[in-house]
Amino acid sequence: MRRKYKLTISFDGTDYHGWQRQQNGITVQEIMEDVMEKITGVPTPVTGCSRTDAGVHAETFVCSFFADTTIPAEKLPFVLNTLLPPDIRARGCAVAPDDFNARFDAVRKTYKYQILNAPFGDPLLRRYAWHYPVRLDFGKMEKACAVIRGERDFRCFMAAGSVVKNTVRNLSELRAEKAGDLITVTATSNGFLYNMVRIIVGTLVYIGNGKLSLDCLAELLTAGDRRLLGITAPPQGLRLCSVEYEL
Amino acid sequence: MRRKYKLTISFDGTDYHGWQRQQNGITVQEIMEDVMEKITGVPTPVTGCSRTDAGVHAETFVCSFFADTTIPAEKLPFVLNTLLPPDIRARGCAVAPDDFNARFDAVRKTYKYQILNAPFGDPLLRRYAWHYPVRLDFGKMEKACAVIRGERDFRCFMAAGSVVKNTVRNLSELRAEKAGDLITVTATSNGFLYNMVRIIVGTLVYIGNGKLSLDCLAELLTAGDRRLLGITAPPQGLRLCSVEYEL
Repeated sequence: MRRKYKLTISFDGTDYHGWQRQQNGITVQEIMEDVMEKITGVPTPVTGCSRTDAGVHAETFVCSFFADTTIPAEKLPFVLNTLLPPDIRARGCAVAPDDFNARFDAVRKTYKYQILNAPFGDPLLRRYAWHYPVRLDFGKMEKACAVIRGERDFRCFMAAGSVVKNTVRNLSELRAEKAGDLITVTATSNGFLYNMVRIIVGTLVYIGNGKLSLDCLAELLTAGDRRLLGITAPPQGLRLCSVEYEL
Repeated sequence: MRRKYKLTISFDGTDYHGWQRQQNGITVQEIMEDVMEKITGVPTPVTGCSRTDAGVHAETFVCSFFADTTIPAEKLPFVLNTLLPPDIRARGCAVAPDDFNARFDAVRKTYKYQILNAPFGDPLLRRYAWHYPVRLDFGKMEKACAVIRGERDFRCFMAAGSVVKNTVRNLSELRAEKAGDLITVTATSNGFLYNMVRIIVGTLVYIGNGKLSLDCLAELLTAGDRRLLGITAPPQGLRLCSVEYEL
């Protein structure tokens, strides 16, 4: 019987060109669709909860698809894991309402970004953190989080060239934590613009290294010009941690 | 002027055949010696604090070598890092006494071993933890640590075929900690036999899954037969964390 499934996976994005299928490189979506086709025998379009960029990771990433299979939903992750490469793992599956859509039904997502703020890089973190050798003022970065978070127009934190009409988002959580040399930025929102977390992190680093003042930041948030804010932080530090649905 | 140097590095062992130079694959020692030869212009034998196995990592690994260079010791890590691959990083360097030997002068080492005890693997930990899907009794593993630690003959925790005369070691610390699904075993000793930590971890897992009882373990420690204990845990969960010298 043809049913809609909600599947949770994790992946290490290092060797993928992001989620969304494309001509120029292998993507997580392509792998998932190929494996589902092997299982069901027919082409199986898989919808992902977000278009993650090349090199970005996911602790939790939710997919939805229609499939006709006799494999019980709770067994599907075990079957998938025998076919998936080790850098993608299925972790949970359930039958969902026919109209469930992993992307459009997501009401909240949480991302984390790791910055290693130390003179020397750490080989064991190089795939999962941005190594930033110049000392950052963590106190200022914490204050900047308080300035940025909230419901507002986040146009200035959107990659140039992106075409989205409504750029108002509710960034309900934005906080920085420090453990030894590792700074972790956590961001929760009802929706993220293209590159939004990475531009926020790049801006926090500009605050931390003194290139941007807190007063300036407050003004620029209103001005809404991407070019006046920090650089886009590199992808490997970013991971999608949770996706929430109202069900 | 020719001087002895003490250099601290970190490496991700995934893509190396361990520390020690060999015919069959690339090793960390080979990379370090090649890079030092590039810097000094002459062959530079580098001594490592231990022979780590293929796939084992190091947060801290100490090397010693003679070199004649005008680069100040504290600058050497920066120069090395421009020449080393990203999975090996130099982190500190100092001039040492001429008779300093990174291997024989080490008085204590600490290793950590990570076990992911969850039904599904985690792609972000697959290079750094042993995924063990069967539920482990953590309380029993903690008790087993108390049985194993201390000064004793560790012959039964040495890989078969190993030829070492004195197999008495002081395992001053052996403890297991649990955070969510991740179990971390920490072992500190004045010396480790070949595969000792990995056999201890394999034995702790046998205790945790019920294949071996605590009573049996106590007896086997005295019997001293490797074949009666647990399997050798896979290398990727292991990392050398610190090396101490009396200086």
